Amino acid sequence: MSLRVGVIGTGAIGRVHIERITNRLTGAAIVAVNDVSRSLAEKAVQDFGINAEVFTSGVDLIRSDSVDAVIVASWGPTHEEFVLAAIAAGKPVFCEKPLAVTAGGCKAIVEAEMAAGRKLVQVGFMRRYDLAYRQLKDVIVNNRIGAPLTLNCAHRAPAAPGFAGDMAITDSCVHEFDVLRWLLADDYVSAQVILPRKTSLCDEQLQDPHVIQLRTRSGVHISIESFVNAQYGYDIRCQVTGETGIAHLAQPISVTLQTAATEQSAIIVDWQERFVDAFDREFQCWINDTLKGEMNGPSAWDGYVVAVTADACVKAKYSGLIEAISLPETPAFYA
Amino acid sequence: MSLRVGVIGTGAIGRVHIERITNRLTGAAIVAVNDVSRSLAEKAVQDFGINAEVFTSGVDLIRSDSVDAVIVASWGPTHEEFVLAAIAAGKPVFCEKPLAVTAGGCKAIVEAEMAAGRKLVQVGFMRRYDLAYRQLKDVIVNNRIGAPLTLNCAHRAPAAPGFAGDMAITDSCVHEFDVLRWLLADDYVSAQVILPRKTSLCDEQLQDPHVIQLRTRSGVHISIESFVNAQYGYDIRCQVTGETGIAHLAQPISVTLQTAATEQSAIIVDWQERFVDAFDREFQCWINDTLKGEMNGPSAWDGYVVAVTADACVKAKYSGLIEAISLPETPAFYA
Amino acid sequence: MSLRVGVIGTGAIGRVHIERITNRLTGAAIVAVNDVSRSLAEKAVQDFGINAEVFTSGVDLIRSDSVDAVIVASWGPTHEEFVLAAIAAGKPVFCEKPLAVTAGGCKAIVEAEMAAGRKLVQVGFMRRYDLAYRQLKDVIVNNRIGAPLTLNCAHRAPAAPGFAGDMAITDSCVHEFDVLRWLLADDYVSAQVILPRKTSLCDEQLQDPHVIQLRTRSGVHISIESFVNAQYGYDIRCQVTGETGIAHLAQPISVTLQTAATEQSAIIVDWQERFVDAFDREFQCWINDTLKGEMNGPSAWDGYVVAVTADACVKAKYSGLIEAISLPETPAFYA
Amino acid sequence: MSLRVGVIGTGAIGRVHIERITNRLTGAAIVAVNDVSRSLAEKAVQDFGINAEVFTSGVDLIRSDSVDAVIVASWGPTHEEFVLAAIAAGKPVFCEKPLAVTAGGCKAIVEAEMAAGRKLVQVGFMRRYDLAYRQLKDVIVNNRIGAPLTLNCAHRAPAAPGFAGDMAITDSCVHEFDVLRWLLADDYVSAQVILPRKTSLCDEQLQDPHVIQLRTRSGVHISIESFVNAQYGYDIRCQVTGETGIAHLAQPISVTLQTAATEQSAIIVDWQERFVDAFDREFQCWINDTLKGEMNGPSAWDGYVVAVTADACVKAKYSGLIEAISLPETPAFYA
Repeated sequence: MSLRVGVIGTGAIGRVHIERITNRLTGAAIVAVNDVSRSLAEKAVQDFGINAEVFTSGVDLIRSDSVDAVIVASWGPTHEEFVLAAIAAGKPVFCEKPLAVTAGGCKAIVEAEMAAGRKLVQVGFMRRYDLAYRQLKDVIVNNRIGAPLTLNCAHRAPAAPGFAGDMAITDSCVHEFDVLRWLLADDYVSAQVILPRKTSLCDEQLQDPHVIQLRTRSGVHISIESFVNAQYGYDIRCQVTGETGIAHLAQPISVTLQTAATEQSAIIVDWQERFVDAFDREFQCWINDTLKGEMNGPSAWDGYVVAVTADACVKAKYSGLIEAISLPETPAFYA
Repeated sequence: MSLRVGVIGTGAIGRVHIERITNRLTGAAIVAVNDVSRSLAEKAVQDFGINAEVFTSGVDLIRSDSVDAVIVASWGPTHEEFVLAAIAAGKPVFCEKPLAVTAGGCKAIVEAEMAAGRKLVQVGFMRRYDLAYRQLKDVIVNNRIGAPLTLNCAHRAPAAPGFAGDMAITDSCVHEFDVLRWLLADDYVSAQVILPRKTSLCDEQLQDPHVIQLRTRSGVHISIESFVNAQYGYDIRCQVTGETGIAHLAQPISVTLQTAATEQSAIIVDWQERFVDAFDREFQCWINDTLKGEMNGPSAWDGYVVAVTADACVKAKYSGLIEAISLPETPAFYA
Repeated sequence: MSLRVGVIGTGAIGRVHIERITNRLTGAAIVAVNDVSRSLAEKAVQDFGINAEVFTSGVDLIRSDSVDAVIVASWGPTHEEFVLAAIAAGKPVFCEKPLAVTAGGCKAIVEAEMAAGRKLVQVGFMRRYDLAYRQLKDVIVNNRIGAPLTLNCAHRAPAAPGFAGDMAITDSCVHEFDVLRWLLADDYVSAQVILPRKTSLCDEQLQDPHVIQLRTRSGVHISIESFVNAQYGYDIRCQVTGETGIAHLAQPISVTLQTAATEQSAIIVDWQERFVDAFDREFQCWINDTLKGEMNGPSAWDGYVVAVTADACVKAKYSGLIEAISLPETPAFYA
Repeated sequence: MSLRVGVIGTGAIGRVHIERITNRLTGAAIVAVNDVSRSLAEKAVQDFGINAEVFTSGVDLIRSDSVDAVIVASWGPTHEEFVLAAIAAGKPVFCEKPLAVTAGGCKAIVEAEMAAGRKLVQVGFMRRYDLAYRQLKDVIVNNRIGAPLTLNCAHRAPAAPGFAGDMAITDSCVHEFDVLRWLLADDYVSAQVILPRKTSLCDEQLQDPHVIQLRTRSGVHISIESFVNAQYGYDIRCQVTGETGIAHLAQPISVTLQTAATEQSAIIVDWQERFVDAFDREFQCWINDTLKGEMNGPSAWDGYVVAVTADACVKAKYSGLIEAISLPETPAFYA
């Protein structure tokens, strides 16, 4: 009794999800694909040897009787339409971030889903499924370091070739916004963005690094160093200072070498390698939950909160001020 | 086109393999089970909700037309019979260690398999599938530390309640014997066993720790500290000294804490937790290979070599001498 | 040809300096002591078996022909007077921080010293002599991580029994202010102080932790987590993010243990243990320099800059704003 | 009341001791020097600006009324004569290892010292003064890992240009022999030497590495990997497996870098850098003890035990057997 999944968007990220569901995970089969480039969709069918129908229209795919659930991995600006269509069709939908490219779009999805009366939407914030973040959350939940007071995080990548404008905030830090809120089970109340000395090793139009600071309802101070042209590797750090101790996010395993007058271990360079296990767990959980008629992952509401937070950070970046993050109470539907 | 698997032995280890194949891996289904205790077999069917026939006889299960491949996870002394039956039936068989309880039994399997003309047997040496060991092998293969000269290994467990006699060698160090030979792509030529001061924290009949020393054909000196009542945790270490550097087996990830005047990370206590990912990969590879008609894992020959090595270590333990490990040339069939 | 040193202030810190100069360092002898409590001064003479005259007046000690150089380790508010007296007497003076309790007092010292035409004053910022900070500075100077962009520092102590008001800034963070400026060879231009959720494990009048943020002329963003009731230990951290890499301040050596399901190393609890070697080197350098008629340590100007920085931080703490740090150009005398 | 020290041997090691006593330590002055090369002795006087008489004869220096205590840092084969002369003159003598080049010579010194009725001889085994070894000993003494059962040590150097024959044992491992015996407060009963595959990166006449194995009276098994052409650095390791845990010798502090896809810290290359603090403490203690008429460091007996142990190891290297280490009971004089 396999879950019949349709995938909209068969570019880079869509293909890796097709591959994992087909070759490594259990309980689901890709039965339908769609892409703005029909040939790309056909190529995915062929490359992974799947028995999937190629749809010319994403909305048709969603409505097809042969599709039980949908993965949206297309271009960001198209997400809102497809997610709303899936809700309209009453079908579970996994949407890669962003849920929508505006906070308003996210809110529309939230309202549609609440009107539909059932949680159908999961957003692709895979870090919640990363073992290292889970260990860190366990430490906090089990009170091993006391109440959290400050967080010191870093999101570093070797380079960000296509980045422009505020993508460091809207495209990569959104993962931080989601996972830290989940980690603390707390909400953000304000944001400040500091623009340190710029690295000379990137497009001179671009500000890099940013230091993004958030404050939570309970007063926790969060600092995120976003540095997407850090050269040396892809490196995700999170340190929590609590009342009685400090906890640090574990790093990927690496053989340790003593060679050439140094003791050294490897830092990964490719971000996909860092979260490959998290992606696997995320999709296996989504498949299992969906087969049981449940949705326990990051919700449309979480996607909306992240969008509002990103908006406040962008505003703070240009104002230089501490900007409020104003959100309605979490609806009971999502609590 | 799922691989139809029969499982012989539905005790502890059999159950975890049924669970992983059913819930986490892809490409196979458990269609038949057998155990000396029929009720235990029935319980497995029920607990994991699988659609599997319960066989009263392991050999009947092997011969059944509804079974494509067999997993042998029964009591050690029964392995030889079941593996030979699988070979006779021309069916792929995954056999938990030991392949047979005597080197002679292993050799009989090797001969039967060669006579059958096709590699059908894989032995459950899961460490080869552990990412940390794979990283270590990559370091050696890529010549990052030069030619290996010495190995310093440790196999430590918190306690070994059921251990008696030479089980430290024959039951747990066999994993070291297999994985180190694979790591070095070399063969053993002699063994010495040193009996250090005994820990007071175990059955006083038992020698613990042992220091087991092996020499390879190319002259690499291997030392393995086997300490199965080490109290503090389950801890597998492997350090390779090469001509230009040293490499250390990576350890499982753990959040790092600063608390109570210490900086600390967790050491696991349960051995299954240490190798859970390796088991998953081992079985997924076995399923994939078997569906393709291949066998690329630890072979019957590897199981035989390990048995001969264990015999030499037991002999050396009582003689106090350096004992030769005599093996015929690896048959072309297994090279 | 030993340096004849007079010590003003024979309380806790004065005593450890007498002890180190007498028992561990070379080239100097304590020949005179003074304290507001004459009996305390007499006790120091007796306890360390030194051949030193006890002076009733600090100023008399400074002026005595038997004294070549002076160490001021008395109560903070007395420092300014004694340092000015030493300058007036033309004698080298080592002054524990603070140089003076107000920026104005520091400025008066700077002006007196410049008028005297010779650098006579060294301020007790011992971190510059710490090997770990020196290694970190070497990394920056040798361009091993590219130009520094952000600094992430922590100053944590298990508890701060006597702390009140803004002492976290004025009493302990002053060491950060001095050493980071030295590390970067840069000057501060603004300060911001964030007040995170307070720990419940200290006097409820006290804000703890503080997050102190400084910006340098070249745009480096510095964040200092000052947490003086951190319970778990005395822990000084400094991480520099540069254009091509990250560098972390080394921590004191500690035996690593694997025990009780953890891998652990010790964190020191007593701050004096952390910087004992730095103190030794600081005083040995001061003795050697003084014997050569030189002064190469932290200067009166450095003491003044730190005082102005601390004032700006205190102001920022209460305003909640980013406050400017306004300093005149460094006089050529001190460059 | 400075200790007036005469130094015999002003080559490399003699010079660094003159330098440290003159510039860094307290309580002693170098008042006399001697070397087989008079010009080398004169050069030391000049280079370090010391007020020392140059003696043509080492024995004359020892007997001089202006000399309170002697440091022997000359060529190894001359040590025995000078130490015996110092004992005859009733003067404290610090002798760099070896105490004598034969076990018989060491024994003669032991007997002469016992006849003199007072401990006058300290041998230059500086590792006992290394903080990392002291931490490790504290762990054992405080029973933090239970009774020691096995030790796993490594002594690695980048290269050993002048090494020939068995110098790896007789010249460098002697430090291991002394410090491990001190660490365990135990005595050796047998030795075995394993000759692993040789590195290709050294003189092909030389065996390198050696694995030297010792057994103590209480049954502790010690393994020392001596690898003097290890290329990558100077690296001293010591791991103790106890009944309840493992302890590892701390390594020198080093800034940690994240750069070029690696996390790395430095390994030192120059052995003198590794033990510079230990040398300082060793000599300061010797000065302090000598001024008090005491001798608390490694004794002539310790030097003798090391010589007997080295002899057994050399014998074992060529016999391939486990060789007994036979020593008389420790005389009460040295207990």
